[in-house]
Amino acid sequence: MRIARFRFNGKISYGIVLGEKVIPAEKLGIPETVEEFIASGIKVSPEGKEGIPLSKVELLAPLSNPPKIICLGLNYFDHAEEQGREPPKDPVIFLKPRTSIAGPFEDIPVPFDYTTQVDYEVELAVVIGRKGKRIPEEEAMNYVFGYMVFNDLSARDIQFGDKQWTRGKSLDKFAPMGPWITTRDEIRDPYSLRMRTLVNGEVMQDSSTAKMAIKIPRIISVLSKGMTLEPGDIIATGTPAGVGVFRNPQRFLKPGDIVEVEIENLGFLRNRIVAE
Amino acid sequence: MRIARFRFNGKISYGIVLGEKVIPAEKLGIPETVEEFIASGIKVSPEGKEGIPLSKVELLAPLSNPPKIICLGLNYFDHAEEQGREPPKDPVIFLKPRTSIAGPFEDIPVPFDYTTQVDYEVELAVVIGRKGKRIPEEEAMNYVFGYMVFNDLSARDIQFGDKQWTRGKSLDKFAPMGPWITTRDEIRDPYSLRMRTLVNGEVMQDSSTAKMAIKIPRIISVLSKGMTLEPGDIIATGTPAGVGVFRNPQRFLKPGDIVEVEIENLGFLRNRIVAE
Repeated sequence: MRIARFRFNGKISYGIVLGEKVIPAEKLGIPETVEEFIASGIKVSPEGKEGIPLSKVELLAPLSNPPKIICLGLNYFDHAEEQGREPPKDPVIFLKPRTSIAGPFEDIPVPFDYTTQVDYEVELAVVIGRKGKRIPEEEAMNYVFGYMVFNDLSARDIQFGDKQWTRGKSLDKFAPMGPWITTRDEIRDPYSLRMRTLVNGEVMQDSSTAKMAIKIPRIISVLSKGMTLEPGDIIATGTPAGVGVFRNPQRFLKPGDIVEVEIENLGFLRNRIVAE
Repeated sequence: MRIARFRFNGKISYGIVLGEKVIPAEKLGIPETVEEFIASGIKVSPEGKEGIPLSKVELLAPLSNPPKIICLGLNYFDHAEEQGREPPKDPVIFLKPRTSIAGPFEDIPVPFDYTTQVDYEVELAVVIGRKGKRIPEEEAMNYVFGYMVFNDLSARDIQFGDKQWTRGKSLDKFAPMGPWITTRDEIRDPYSLRMRTLVNGEVMQDSSTAKMAIKIPRIISVLSKGMTLEPGDIIATGTPAGVGVFRNPQRFLKPGDIVEVEIENLGFLRNRIVAE
């Protein structure tokens, strides 16, 4: 099942994607927000219900107010390698604020007087479905509601200048996500998905979730030793090789650039960089 | 004015503190949550209204679902000095999740199989009152709703092991705050407030907000170049010297320890460390 949030006729709603249509939540008698729907654990049967053609809606970020957006750093073998490093044993994280959320096809306005080194990072994002603390690795996948494509946009000058990554990762709209949430049951093996980034059509990252160092069950297990995970929490699991800052020559995003990030079976995001 | 959130007769509410009483929101016709009250900009006149004695309520964290909890690192001259460092030119930040919120007098359950180096940090927290982006320094104080005492509890082994500070700062209840929000108009000079930490009655930090390196207007101005600030956002502005990890010998918190953090004119928090 795919859950999409969208704008149609000026009104924001969400629904279940069926083929080329989306069945709105109000037709299905499910809660008002995606966050509440996930927390409710309700099962839906969208079959046979009237839908809106996807081509007529504007897709939005599936979540607008997740409790947390947790991101892992250095969690792909090929990305660690391009920095001459090794992935850490335990997840190294930072948080993004909700103000960093952007839609899958939205323009990203960048304050170029504040950063001139904006970079892309394609990531597999996990959406948590149930509240949990001290979750054993063996049970961790039961806490996964689904997956999204995530672009962990980063102002490298600020990120590396501060050494702490948060400020350079927290700019408005620096977390495009979507295009929808694909539920866990639809992805048989989350570690065999091709993932790519294209800038103006040129391939910049081309790797696979196979190169993820700390896998999802251990991420969930370790993090939940300290912090309660909540329904709607997003965990972006790290990016593979090919980011702009470690290319030779370096390649940062500039106004007019079209950034596409895609993950096999989960869809793609296409965002245009504009000057704020 | 002081805004307190509390539990009384099993029900959670908030209100305005007047002397030794708190006038509940429902008696004042103000919105249902502190976050909504702050965003509304409504002025209240609690005088003459019936209140509940403060001694009869359990004070809670004034905010339970702030949009962001932003914390600054290395922002006191004496705390930078105890590490042989200098404060950075621009604010170095990390975010705490809402699951880290704890009340001013609540027990803090620590998973001692996950961290054995829990440390205190007394901090002046600013509560943002208005939405803003690219806020000029000269106007920044108009975006401050008020102040709170904040204890930025930190698992030093995780924090320094990861190098990124977030995971070690994000444990459940590692952000006690309160005891209430004191509005900006009540604090003539936020840079002349004595601040202290006591562990089991022994003074561990004893400094002043005078030692804050980057002052509030510049913090707000620089951060809002990149991210929109929202009503209810919390900015903890850094801690002074005397934290446990830089003492000789080091002093970490253990089960049974009572940690008090206090700031002149803003009140104090008193939390007991317990084994989870």
